[in-house]
Amino acid sequence: MISMSDSSANNDDGDMSEFGLIARLAEFGVAKNLQNPESILTGIGDDTAVVSASSGQLLLTTDAIVDGIHFRSVDERWYDIGWKCAVSNLSDIAAMGGIPDHALVTLGVPKGASMETFIDFYSGMNEAFAKFGGAVVGGDVVSSPNMFVNLALTGHPVSNGDGESAWLKRSAAQVDDLVCVTGPLGGSAGGLEVLLSGDTNPSGQTLVNRHFHPAPRIELGNRLVEAGVRCAMDVSDGLVGDLEKLASASNVRIRIDMTNIPIPAELIFMFGTSAIELALSGGEDYELVFTAPKTIVQALQEENGSNITVIGQITDDEVVGGKVRVVDATGDDYEPIRKGWDHLNG
Amino acid sequence: MISMSDSSANNDDGDMSEFGLIARLAEFGVAKNLQNPESILTGIGDDTAVVSASSGQLLLTTDAIVDGIHFRSVDERWYDIGWKCAVSNLSDIAAMGGIPDHALVTLGVPKGASMETFIDFYSGMNEAFAKFGGAVVGGDVVSSPNMFVNLALTGHPVSNGDGESAWLKRSAAQVDDLVCVTGPLGGSAGGLEVLLSGDTNPSGQTLVNRHFHPAPRIELGNRLVEAGVRCAMDVSDGLVGDLEKLASASNVRIRIDMTNIPIPAELIFMFGTSAIELALSGGEDYELVFTAPKTIVQALQEENGSNITVIGQITDDEVVGGKVRVVDATGDDYEPIRKGWDHLNG
Repeated sequence: MISMSDSSANNDDGDMSEFGLIARLAEFGVAKNLQNPESILTGIGDDTAVVSASSGQLLLTTDAIVDGIHFRSVDERWYDIGWKCAVSNLSDIAAMGGIPDHALVTLGVPKGASMETFIDFYSGMNEAFAKFGGAVVGGDVVSSPNMFVNLALTGHPVSNGDGESAWLKRSAAQVDDLVCVTGPLGGSAGGLEVLLSGDTNPSGQTLVNRHFHPAPRIELGNRLVEAGVRCAMDVSDGLVGDLEKLASASNVRIRIDMTNIPIPAELIFMFGTSAIELALSGGEDYELVFTAPKTIVQALQEENGSNITVIGQITDDEVVGGKVRVVDATGDDYEPIRKGWDHLNG
Repeated sequence: MISMSDSSANNDDGDMSEFGLIARLAEFGVAKNLQNPESILTGIGDDTAVVSASSGQLLLTTDAIVDGIHFRSVDERWYDIGWKCAVSNLSDIAAMGGIPDHALVTLGVPKGASMETFIDFYSGMNEAFAKFGGAVVGGDVVSSPNMFVNLALTGHPVSNGDGESAWLKRSAAQVDDLVCVTGPLGGSAGGLEVLLSGDTNPSGQTLVNRHFHPAPRIELGNRLVEAGVRCAMDVSDGLVGDLEKLASASNVRIRIDMTNIPIPAELIFMFGTSAIELALSGGEDYELVFTAPKTIVQALQEENGSNITVIGQITDDEVVGGKVRVVDATGDDYEPIRKGWDHLNG
């Protein structure tokens, strides 16, 4: 699902960045063409759209994967690719605290592709839906020189503690909120590096498995809504880059305490001190990052134990465009080498 | 939106046809992964899926277009391509007799693509939504070596004459029903041929415009449901091929009276006797084809005048796999050179 970032993501030299394109298209897509603007409860700029349908609220999201960009057909890991394709969409529903319902699949099929490729892909995708909710109800099959798969997924919101339908937004962070993540970060990016290097070390293979078999935090997302959390997103493009989107949507400054970020033991074993860079910038872990007052965070931690880790705090509000600061153990600013992934410029 | 055809569409030599692939995937997508099968009211095999969401019925459809397959980026007709992309999805909603609501757009963006390309594309797409209903609420932007656009669209059903929520299905044709179309056929395919030939004749340009500017029959689809029609689809891949899908879904034999098929005057002017072939096999006119008892057809014709033309009849039921016969003015069988378009094998 696209997110609208600050306009500074537009390159000065006129090159198109993902976020620049999205910001421009958001003007066209949302501002200029609404027959029933009141039916759009949350539009472009969050993990899913939330709309009011004829008789209920609906979460809507879509995500595409392209051969050579998001996966490599030469790996022939079709089951895993199918699983991950489902999870990337399921995670958007999780990030809203919702429940997944119905999926539409579009297959872009190159000449010479085998039926088995797609059956394996579907098996993995359906396994993820069977485990986390949702079901394929239709789709489209088109010829394409380059393989791609697009998934569109609907869902619905759950009720908060007051019995009202509610969902998690990027724009709801409040000053003094704690910033939390639901699990360790960097494992998927580490797994990709191991895969590309050809390393067969068992710790490395654990990371490769984490890369191919992430889990969307559907139940935990539901629980966050029920507990009164109002602000969250999923870590799909990299922690710092994703938090910059949240900071921008909420107009807040976020402090990240680098040493508090949970990192998988295998990642430290394999990458040493570089592990922290992978945790700060690596995408596709599909953990949730959320902000909430201390009392809510403590209540959640008592229930879920080590699943929830406080990694920072919202330090200021009314910060136009938002800002993320990463600080080290001594409180000094730390500048990550890379913050995340722009889907158009790699 | 995909449709599940009879298994005979599977090539004997193991080559993958669109319909063979869809049939196999339908087994996986629908039969094997339903958490709440009762929530799927109409699954794979119709113009849209119809699902029961948390508090209402929902139509869901998706359609993708790929550079070099469904459009040519070299033409630079981005506004027109955007319009047509919206219409192909809107037409699926029209084919169910529903009302379009919310759209998700995925852009597959090649390196070096210009912002203006997508702004023009969005302008055309949004113009179609503004005219026929629906609004873009989100999407995804991904890098892709080859440009593609995927649209997913939701809608909702209208009520029939008894005040019950109802929609048009491919599987509801009854013996003796008349087979009708809502407008002339073949114009879009003729327009494509004119475009490819480079001909600048004004009649040809009318056809080119018909190719780039089709209209989805949303209001008429709604009216069909209200009038008690139960069986319809849109003519998107070619009349005979599309009717074979309807015949298969309903297990009926259909007789098409070739001389009754409405054909645009410009098509006859430009293509002479070949016009009938384009009307039988040309896709993307986005007219509706429906079947209904004579009394309903007559009532509709009195309202809508020449919009509705009877082109044939359901002659037999309990025909497993279905069958379409095209007959000429003398009642002899006519074998079309081509019946329609398989999206994988062109």
